[in-house]
Amino acid sequence: MSSDKIVLYTAPTPNGITVSILLEELKATYGIPDYDAVKMSLNQADRGKVHNQVKADWFLELNPAGRIPTIVHHDVPVVETSAILLYLAAQFDKEFKFSFDPIKDPYNYSEQLQWLFFTHGGIGPMQSQANHFIKFSTEDIPYGKKRYLDETKRLYGVLAIRLQDREYLTGPGRGKYALADIKAYALVSKAWFIDIDLGEWPPLKKWVERIAERPAVQAGETIVTW
Amino acid sequence: MSSDKIVLYTAPTPNGITVSILLEELKATYGIPDYDAVKMSLNQADRGKVHNQVKADWFLELNPAGRIPTIVHHDVPVVETSAILLYLAAQFDKEFKFSFDPIKDPYNYSEQLQWLFFTHGGIGPMQSQANHFIKFSTEDIPYGKKRYLDETKRLYGVLAIRLQDREYLTGPGRGKYALADIKAYALVSKAWFIDIDLGEWPPLKKWVERIAERPAVQAGETIVTW
Repeated sequence: MSSDKIVLYTAPTPNGITVSILLEELKATYGIPDYDAVKMSLNQADRGKVHNQVKADWFLELNPAGRIPTIVHHDVPVVETSAILLYLAAQFDKEFKFSFDPIKDPYNYSEQLQWLFFTHGGIGPMQSQANHFIKFSTEDIPYGKKRYLDETKRLYGVLAIRLQDREYLTGPGRGKYALADIKAYALVSKAWFIDIDLGEWPPLKKWVERIAERPAVQAGETIVTW
Repeated sequence: MSSDKIVLYTAPTPNGITVSILLEELKATYGIPDYDAVKMSLNQADRGKVHNQVKADWFLELNPAGRIPTIVHHDVPVVETSAILLYLAAQFDKEFKFSFDPIKDPYNYSEQLQWLFFTHGGIGPMQSQANHFIKFSTEDIPYGKKRYLDETKRLYGVLAIRLQDREYLTGPGRGKYALADIKAYALVSKAWFIDIDLGEWPPLKKWVERIAERPAVQAGETIVTW
């Protein structure tokens, strides 16, 4: 039977906390949606052994890419972090507190998409490769470490240029805290993992601190724990 | 002075041809928009020497990430391949021939976003890293070659699962040729560059052949040449 309640399949990673942050923001503002978080194992060694592994058959039915976060709402899966943010905003953010109206405010809606894609296709994968070569690779490959650390930092520099005279990435004037901030925050706030010092980009550091203070962000970050 | 004409800054790369393919599809269907294509140099050695280099100051003013494709419409830059596709569709695809109505057809609009983000954040960056390690890296790094070739092929497998009983990635029934197909086609059709044989995934190979036959695709691919 279809239920209004959302199931969020997630794990304590930057992408994993992105969706729970927005869900907590929506709940704090609108009182909905209700959701259950299910913690998934990303551990290759668990494959075939643990029910909640992202490459388990039942999970691949929901998301053939075998990736978290994935949500199910009204029996339908929705995948890809940024697409989930846009889906939840379209369903629940009726007053556009965290997003922009695609029809009445097409310019800001487009800017939101531009920063989401910039983050989703740039910072996300590059920081993830930096994490891999610096922390997880089975071989020590200085070329890979340098390549992805440099690229991650270059992309942080682009965010910092944008934030030079703004508080948030999108919206008129000094901006409005919205989806692109949530998506980018989840990554940039975890830069310590590979010893990136945000002090290199003061506007970026201030922006992270500003967002980290929000109670819904703190709640969303700890829905599933490390 | 503001003009209705679009300026497309591009280069002969998978991302570069994505936007000109959609522009040619729109022109073939609606007769608009008019656009000029400006070929940009991606060559590091050209930096500071060539006017049309993506890291030239005037171009970084348009797109601080220094990336093609970038468009300018009504004096405003729009960046990120997939966000440009969604912008052009919102502006010009009024009959939703290549896209879906975000308000009246939210389910298919969300699926379109999901496949765009999957391609933009997955196949795009992974295939690009495979290209780098296999074709361009200054060091021979077998670990990097294998890592990104394997991941690119895994993601192609996800597209193939989706295309098993469909002609196109999104839309009801067997699907409708739309933005996500254009975005993914531009990448998958260039798999030969790193010797990936699409024969491994028959539904994917047929899908590429189906799209390659379209006159607007052929026109869009050759707007700027190698």
